Amino acid sequence: MDLVVGIDIGGTKTKIGLVTKEGECLIQTYFRTREYEDFDNYLDKIVTTIHDLTKELKGEVKLMGCGIGAPNASDRNGTIEHATNLVWKGTVPILKKMKERLDVPMRIMNDATAAALGEMMYGNAKGMKDFIVITLGTGFGAGIVANGQIISGFDGFAGELGHTDMTLGDGRLTGLNIRGGLEAYVSATGLKRTIMYLQCKYMDKSRFRDIAYSNLHGEDITRAAEEGDVLAIKAFDYTAKILGLALANFTVFTQPEAFFLLGGLANSGKWIFETTEKYMNESLLQVYKGKVKILPSGMPNKTAAICGAAALIWENYK
Amino acid sequence: MDLVVGIDIGGTKTKIGLVTKEGECLIQTYFRTREYEDFDNYLDKIVTTIHDLTKELKGEVKLMGCGIGAPNASDRNGTIEHATNLVWKGTVPILKKMKERLDVPMRIMNDATAAALGEMMYGNAKGMKDFIVITLGTGFGAGIVANGQIISGFDGFAGELGHTDMTLGDGRLTGLNIRGGLEAYVSATGLKRTIMYLQCKYMDKSRFRDIAYSNLHGEDITRAAEEGDVLAIKAFDYTAKILGLALANFTVFTQPEAFFLLGGLANSGKWIFETTEKYMNESLLQVYKGKVKILPSGMPNKTAAICGAAALIWENYK
Repeated sequence: MDLVVGIDIGGTKTKIGLVTKEGECLIQTYFRTREYEDFDNYLDKIVTTIHDLTKELKGEVKLMGCGIGAPNASDRNGTIEHATNLVWKGTVPILKKMKERLDVPMRIMNDATAAALGEMMYGNAKGMKDFIVITLGTGFGAGIVANGQIISGFDGFAGELGHTDMTLGDGRLTGLNIRGGLEAYVSATGLKRTIMYLQCKYMDKSRFRDIAYSNLHGEDITRAAEEGDVLAIKAFDYTAKILGLALANFTVFTQPEAFFLLGGLANSGKWIFETTEKYMNESLLQVYKGKVKILPSGMPNKTAAICGAAALIWENYK
Repeated sequence: MDLVVGIDIGGTKTKIGLVTKEGECLIQTYFRTREYEDFDNYLDKIVTTIHDLTKELKGEVKLMGCGIGAPNASDRNGTIEHATNLVWKGTVPILKKMKERLDVPMRIMNDATAAALGEMMYGNAKGMKDFIVITLGTGFGAGIVANGQIISGFDGFAGELGHTDMTLGDGRLTGLNIRGGLEAYVSATGLKRTIMYLQCKYMDKSRFRDIAYSNLHGEDITRAAEEGDVLAIKAFDYTAKILGLALANFTVFTQPEAFFLLGGLANSGKWIFETTEKYMNESLLQVYKGKVKILPSGMPNKTAAICGAAALIWENYK
């Protein structure tokens, strides 16, 4: 059976799975990224995990390749560079070191770009030539497709849209010390920060008055909004307003047919989708109005990242 | 002799020229756009002008096609739509109507995108696969090349970067009523508006205290800066700061190798180039620092727009 290894490297978890050409993830597992501060040990753990998965599957498995999605990854250089959410600092030559351990075709890409490729091959972006996938997790990632092609940029670092500044240099600081960076507003972390901001700005009663920042979780804010907590509802409105403005800004760039919202914050459903669409349409230029969709992912939630990473390899066997 | 007609439709002037395959403009002329409020009369004038130019050239001329650059033009639809700086309102089916008058291959594109193609074929972007051309005239236009291809977008309206909002919806209004639109800050018009803003904000002496807004011209501001006028110098610094932030924002999108600054404001030379580069580098993420150039056009100033428009046709004869 021909399979591709899909690896999604996240700040918290490293997910690994085996994926068919049709985009089905037959088996998957994960381990905690932070437990492997030594990069060589980390790669050894990845390779052991791949072997374990292959054995577990039974039957004849032929590994056709290995696709990796990671934050701050460069397709062109085969590296991960200056990723704030990962434990290894500076530039990590991951592709070179992986190839020493596993002799199959290999490719790495920005995790959101891998997700975009997955969406194009297996998900809701089938047949689309111009779209943008946005991942709203701890951070804000983006994968851009234009003219039917992945946009990777001069040096492989295109799509870091979470580091767009929309405040003329006068806003919240991101983890990379960019003032006003979109990620500081629109992400699970941004939503938590907004709960703090609103507690300062308004005097509304809210369950969050009794919860410290460190104990706040994105899902709790969704639940609170559903139960009518005023600050939670205001927090989603504020987040969606900024995201709507941002999507209007992105539209003038490559004029996508659709934006796909993925990741934890996107799971908040209507609290993000409907309001963002309203604010986006308010800000869109006349020539774009009514032409830009905001859509959910068409990939199974649990395996989207793994299948996206595997698509990096399967793309070449089309 | 094989020649292509290059037409640059601007709010003020319509420029027409005949261009060789090598990108040389052999002859050119212009007329005032605003004198032709009736669109059919306007097109008749264009065709008459083309015939006059052809006659004037002497020798056998074979017209290989006609390329048109215009604001708010859609490559895909062959139209100009909702262009605020032009006299014809709504959607104008220019390609269809031109073809009724002149039976040659024809193509229209956003003027800045045409300039980008010209720069790639004949100018300073030769050999580059990822770059962005920015035209700083009355407005702010952009032409985006990624993966070696023009980015036109789902509906042909990609690249309207002058309508990016960087103020979270709280800034100056553009001609299209977009609050905070970049064009309201970074353009010849934006520079004039900044002179007003600075006269409000500071009490510095300046020659501009004696000049009304309507009598202000971009070139006067450059001259004043060169002669040490404090407000003029501050105005350029303010403009370059916002442009620098904007270019840092654009970099995270397609990660261009270079930005090319063209048009009236770019002619202010060091007042724009050096300061913008400084501010851009201050705002760039680590992974981009030192990798993004800001360059002048490599096309002759007077014929750049015409040659860019002609490149739309010559591109197909490569």
